Amino acid sequence: MSEAYVGLESVKWNNGQVDLLDQRLLPEEIVYLPLTTKEDVWEAIRHLKVRGAPAIGIAAAYGVVVASQAAETIEAWQKAVIESAQYLATSRPTAVNLFWALDRMKAAAEQIIAQGFSLEDSKKALENEAIAIQQQDEETNRAIGEYALSLFKEDMGVLTHCNAGGLATAKYGTALAPFYLAKERGMKLRVFADETRPVLQGARLTAFELHQAGVDVTLICDNMAGMVMSKGWIDAVIVGTDRVAANGDVANKIGTYSVAVLAKAHGIPFYVACPLSTIDLNTPTGSEIPIEERPDEEITEGFGKRTAPQGVKVFNPAFDITPNEYVAGIITEKGIVTAPYEENLRKLFEN
Amino acid sequence: MSEAYVGLESVKWNNGQVDLLDQRLLPEEIVYLPLTTKEDVWEAIRHLKVRGAPAIGIAAAYGVVVASQAAETIEAWQKAVIESAQYLATSRPTAVNLFWALDRMKAAAEQIIAQGFSLEDSKKALENEAIAIQQQDEETNRAIGEYALSLFKEDMGVLTHCNAGGLATAKYGTALAPFYLAKERGMKLRVFADETRPVLQGARLTAFELHQAGVDVTLICDNMAGMVMSKGWIDAVIVGTDRVAANGDVANKIGTYSVAVLAKAHGIPFYVACPLSTIDLNTPTGSEIPIEERPDEEITEGFGKRTAPQGVKVFNPAFDITPNEYVAGIITEKGIVTAPYEENLRKLFEN
Repeated sequence: MSEAYVGLESVKWNNGQVDLLDQRLLPEEIVYLPLTTKEDVWEAIRHLKVRGAPAIGIAAAYGVVVASQAAETIEAWQKAVIESAQYLATSRPTAVNLFWALDRMKAAAEQIIAQGFSLEDSKKALENEAIAIQQQDEETNRAIGEYALSLFKEDMGVLTHCNAGGLATAKYGTALAPFYLAKERGMKLRVFADETRPVLQGARLTAFELHQAGVDVTLICDNMAGMVMSKGWIDAVIVGTDRVAANGDVANKIGTYSVAVLAKAHGIPFYVACPLSTIDLNTPTGSEIPIEERPDEEITEGFGKRTAPQGVKVFNPAFDITPNEYVAGIITEKGIVTAPYEENLRKLFEN
Repeated sequence: MSEAYVGLESVKWNNGQVDLLDQRLLPEEIVYLPLTTKEDVWEAIRHLKVRGAPAIGIAAAYGVVVASQAAETIEAWQKAVIESAQYLATSRPTAVNLFWALDRMKAAAEQIIAQGFSLEDSKKALENEAIAIQQQDEETNRAIGEYALSLFKEDMGVLTHCNAGGLATAKYGTALAPFYLAKERGMKLRVFADETRPVLQGARLTAFELHQAGVDVTLICDNMAGMVMSKGWIDAVIVGTDRVAANGDVANKIGTYSVAVLAKAHGIPFYVACPLSTIDLNTPTGSEIPIEERPDEEITEGFGKRTAPQGVKVFNPAFDITPNEYVAGIITEKGIVTAPYEENLRKLFEN
């Protein structure tokens, strides 16, 4: 079914090293960086060479493998797993998949130790765990895409913000998965991609990967979303997320909240697509999600030259919170969750 | 009273030539271009070297002087005035001040001819008309600033979009005038400036001129406006406009409509500041205002490097329409107009 998908892989496991697509260079250059230490992986996550909650989780999981594979005793191996997981968790604060993947790797190591494997077998088993995280992400995204596609009809206009595509995940993406599945089936959707200042993930990544795959995509500036909605061109909005709180509040790339408010004002449903690993029942509401603030220069010199006066004050939050009342549905690999979110999100994890 | 204002002049009349501040080079370089032909002026308006509805009108008025000053007979002079006015009107489609200033110059030429002045006196009288347009704009803006300031209180947060400042006008600006007057009086306001993609007038011009004048200004990306409002940091929005229709619909820089919808959703008043010359009673509603679409490259390679894939579709409207129901007040040199706009705007011109 998926032959038609021609996306670049953001993270490739290559015999003991991580080959990471440097997303900062897209769309002009396609460069894979070899990462061979936990510091390489930390730095790649911190500096947005890899971004997208699932892809960050996958990269971090491989980072634990990379950090522990040279250990010469079981004790040293276990220590390397724990310490590298703690260290990698400090690379970025908002994406819950990062912590989820690292916890899963630590739990796997504990189980491996409990089983009394040899050092070599332990290393192999942990490597397999990281590979499984990546493979399961692909299957998960395909399931999300199927559920999302059930919401869309031929010739609908769908707006997306930032990049929750193949580049943000193992494959297909979350919010972009339905567009790839539609393309495979010859169903036409008109996608509008917000460019997503300041880092332009929409222009550089979403427009790039959809255009490359032959999906009908139109690039707009973030501030055009309202106008495009008022023209009647948009039938639905779909975005990814970095963390969903237990009450259904959604943390996602800065600007998502504005899009959600605009969608509501125009009577357009606003959907969020994510795997269960992005839903954090331990975070009661959006106000408990830490919002990373990033350097001024992302705004003032983002295009390779200075575009704002020296010394001016800048506010540069990387994320915002969309309260649950704006969310028409959260699309997961187990189905589409609707309000009341507190109750219905919890049920997802009970089955 | 106005000693504290330290703005750059966007248009300077310099003995028969127009010295025009090239706004595309701000904030990095301050360069005045000498314009000596109507083609120079047309090109400067078309390519955004000068922008802002009042400043465009002023530049166009001087363009008519420049085009006609070499005429050797009254007939040739009159022909040059009419033809240059027609020609300059084709430089940009949306800003009504352009047409207003050109019509005023043509009407002045007719009156001058009716009075039977000599060729030299006719030229001098027309030059004085252009100078008067510029001087009256400064007085108008000061009056607008006074009315606008009456809406603000100490320590309020005010968001603005694009640049309706000193650079867009003869002096003070329209939407930014109250900030300069507040500064002169030691009253503190916190201004938030949307960077205003694609051409970044907010970052390059508004943040620049307010910062230069010592006003407390914070630069944000357009897509952060909703988040900043949700934090309770914004008490009012004020923007300029390129044309107000008879029913109070407002054409302004792309993204203004999104800001207006977001303001309404947060219970924040949205004000529009403009001179009477921007109000066009001959345009019944916003849907009759032509919306200029500009080249894709403004979005895909705006600042010297490509930030979107080759060949991707782009939608790049330069303006949008904010329907009158979003507008809390239109602030003019004759006072603040509120709904019902059709009736109350008409009254402005009857007094």
